[in-house]
Amino acid sequence: MIKVTVWNEYVHEVESEVIRAVYPDGIHGCIKEFLQTEDDLQVRVATLNMPECGLTDEVLEDTDVLLWWGHKKHGEVPDEIVKRVQDRVLRGMGLIVLHSGHHSKIFRSLMGTTCDLRWRDNDRERVWCANPAHPIAQGIPAHFELEHEEMYGEHFTIPNPDDVVFIGWFAGGEVFRSGCTFARGLGKIFYFQPGHEEYPIYRNEYVQKIIKNAIRWAKPTFISEDLICIHAKQPLEK
Amino acid sequence: MIKVTVWNEYVHEVESEVIRAVYPDGIHGCIKEFLQTEDDLQVRVATLNMPECGLTDEVLEDTDVLLWWGHKKHGEVPDEIVKRVQDRVLRGMGLIVLHSGHHSKIFRSLMGTTCDLRWRDNDRERVWCANPAHPIAQGIPAHFELEHEEMYGEHFTIPNPDDVVFIGWFAGGEVFRSGCTFARGLGKIFYFQPGHEEYPIYRNEYVQKIIKNAIRWAKPTFISEDLICIHAKQPLEK
Amino acid sequence: MIKVTVWNEYVHEVESEVIRAVYPDGIHGCIKEFLQTEDDLQVRVATLNMPECGLTDEVLEDTDVLLWWGHKKHGEVPDEIVKRVQDRVLRGMGLIVLHSGHHSKIFRSLMGTTCDLRWRDNDRERVWCANPAHPIAQGIPAHFELEHEEMYGEHFTIPNPDDVVFIGWFAGGEVFRSGCTFARGLGKIFYFQPGHEEYPIYRNEYVQKIIKNAIRWAKPTFISEDLICIHAKQPLEK
Amino acid sequence: MIKVTVWNEYVHEVESEVIRAVYPDGIHGCIKEFLQTEDDLQVRVATLNMPECGLTDEVLEDTDVLLWWGHKKHGEVPDEIVKRVQDRVLRGMGLIVLHSGHHSKIFRSLMGTTCDLRWRDNDRERVWCANPAHPIAQGIPAHFELEHEEMYGEHFTIPNPDDVVFIGWFAGGEVFRSGCTFARGLGKIFYFQPGHEEYPIYRNEYVQKIIKNAIRWAKPTFISEDLICIHAKQPLEK
Repeated sequence: MIKVTVWNEYVHEVESEVIRAVYPDGIHGCIKEFLQTEDDLQVRVATLNMPECGLTDEVLEDTDVLLWWGHKKHGEVPDEIVKRVQDRVLRGMGLIVLHSGHHSKIFRSLMGTTCDLRWRDNDRERVWCANPAHPIAQGIPAHFELEHEEMYGEHFTIPNPDDVVFIGWFAGGEVFRSGCTFARGLGKIFYFQPGHEEYPIYRNEYVQKIIKNAIRWAKPTFISEDLICIHAKQPLEK
Repeated sequence: MIKVTVWNEYVHEVESEVIRAVYPDGIHGCIKEFLQTEDDLQVRVATLNMPECGLTDEVLEDTDVLLWWGHKKHGEVPDEIVKRVQDRVLRGMGLIVLHSGHHSKIFRSLMGTTCDLRWRDNDRERVWCANPAHPIAQGIPAHFELEHEEMYGEHFTIPNPDDVVFIGWFAGGEVFRSGCTFARGLGKIFYFQPGHEEYPIYRNEYVQKIIKNAIRWAKPTFISEDLICIHAKQPLEK
Repeated sequence: MIKVTVWNEYVHEVESEVIRAVYPDGIHGCIKEFLQTEDDLQVRVATLNMPECGLTDEVLEDTDVLLWWGHKKHGEVPDEIVKRVQDRVLRGMGLIVLHSGHHSKIFRSLMGTTCDLRWRDNDRERVWCANPAHPIAQGIPAHFELEHEEMYGEHFTIPNPDDVVFIGWFAGGEVFRSGCTFARGLGKIFYFQPGHEEYPIYRNEYVQKIIKNAIRWAKPTFISEDLICIHAKQPLEK
Repeated sequence: MIKVTVWNEYVHEVESEVIRAVYPDGIHGCIKEFLQTEDDLQVRVATLNMPECGLTDEVLEDTDVLLWWGHKKHGEVPDEIVKRVQDRVLRGMGLIVLHSGHHSKIFRSLMGTTCDLRWRDNDRERVWCANPAHPIAQGIPAHFELEHEEMYGEHFTIPNPDDVVFIGWFAGGEVFRSGCTFARGLGKIFYFQPGHEEYPIYRNEYVQKIIKNAIRWAKPTFISEDLICIHAKQPLEK
């Protein structure tokens, strides 16, 4: 059983009637809904307005893979919570960063870069698979379309990914490394670009399949109790 | 002084009046022309119809960076010439593989894969820079256009590149890792997708700049005399 | 069920009484023995002296992961068999190359380099884990020892691995990237250095565990029927 | 002309007579001395006890490559100075992190990981070249020795490096990725392990050569004025 926590800022859906119409139960509610039918996944949600952002030590220690959607309120996630999540990732928890989470404190802390990109509202995307053998691409066709999606374009200021699984084509003329993997400490990280709040992206069957695949790929090999330098006082050789 | 050899199959330009009109002196002649005005480059050409494909031991031993354009006659390059070029790359010579050279014996031998891709005649491309700090991207804008270009699309069956420098957007709906680097042995390799024979791609200022940058990047750190396993009979420690 | 074929040259064990004493049933026999007790593995063996090296189309099409041990007779594996194995790897079959298989035709074909290295008989090795979160390292301690092992040292002339999972320390003074992963086409490849024929390396519990982990990691995401360029005659966009 | 700033914590040399005997002018003084004889380098120094750690906006904007040596007082470098250095690296400045700088705030911020490792005083190291074609390895033999050096061993908790240039062998039984490169934003980063304060490591000819090579490799392709997301209001395509 893989323990999944879906974290959502949950602000757009509260503030805007239009967006609430797309995701009446919040983005986290929609994601939880399509995940919880999977036999091997046990899903909970957490949001910004909960105490400690819903990411207490207890919750994190009980999480194998964390999903992260945020946009307007990145700055309101306290640094100590970010540090707590980062520690947990480095000790083995998987992390899946969705869409505008590219600018979240947690993603930037783990990447070490600005994670800046080029963007524009209201475009159309075709997602191409650039690594069909990757576990995250299992069951995904060579390409699929998102009739309405925000454009995210290169240059995406991230370190060289371990694998580029998807590359996005935008009708407006741009390209983007839309699905990228990174190993950090004992944790596996997947960044996945689709998911603008105004469109029902998380109801797309391939987007759902990719997120499920990514959870199974990112589940911990093992979780370490601590992260420390080892002072090996005695040499192994005399 | 960097010694450059521009190899061209030189078949399209001989057989087709239309293509000869684009490149009256052959693709190699056009490339030589824009390279030889550079003070640090010394340029020669070689073609399929020369003895030993123009790639004798003497020529290769006197080459720092080899450019390769081929398409229709990949199969007519003898295996022993391919082996000779591969050995030279592994001993330090730079190699720049252009456009349809993706299916050349030499590129496939160095990659270990089919180097297959998706393709279609007669499209329009916008080349995006995905790695602005790379030496090969120096002086290149965030994006530039090729009004007419053949489409090459994902999935491109290559090993993970060391760096993806450019990603192509095609009006017909595809994307492609258009500029990729690979280290093999002591040699540096750059694959660059633009360059279909029907269009004057090699007269584009940015294409020319990228090829010049790539030559300077791919020049050998050093050339080794031989490639052998070292039988270290005596241990370094007692 | 993962279908595993263990390929062994099977020459040392026949020709030398000393080596036969270490592996009375051949290296392949020893490996088969410790694999076949696993519930999810179905194991067969193949050797150089079988018709078509035991690697007929039927056998390969029925293999998910191929293990390869060879040393003295690399040159006697026919090129067409090597090509057949390479095609199968590129279409999705996993490949685990053991010890002196670094110089096999199949490994060199997939790497594109000489795979040369430094070597010396009769040393002692300590294998260090450089990537504890990798599935292949699951259950392996920070380091373990091989009291007798041939030394393989840097520089190992391979392309940059996707992951370096193990690094070897040798009492004689050398280091080596002892466990490396590579993706080629749809296939996953793991090179693992321990396994000199004179010592009972394949009876070591950690070596066995690593090989089992590697088989599970290398099993195909999917197997493709063919490998071809796709001529996409009609654009996706009008 | 490459503008180099050598930053040193400069605490050990002040507090300990033994260490001051090794580096009477400080580690920074020693490094400056062997760098300033190079015609293409213009060298200044900066230390923790200077105002703003000697890393004012003016100094950083006038620096192409920054070297960093720190150990005891990582915590005393103010976060705003770390942020300033990180921004400058992401806009193009090269960074060379030396020895115990693995635990500096700046290196950890750029890596996103703990950068933890295994360590022990008073060992002997042999540095092996694992990438002889890399510009940083130019002129360096296959291996060289440091008669006295602190042991740093795996597992080194860093992201996958772009290139592993050197691997260290320690007489006490460990191995370490001693020379690693990383690209972050527009900046190039080299981590180099040798350099314990108690031994005259920075007087070793190969260590000096590697640092000089690294400076030339890490010099900026270009420096960007700012780091921002681009809101591309109008699509490139109609």
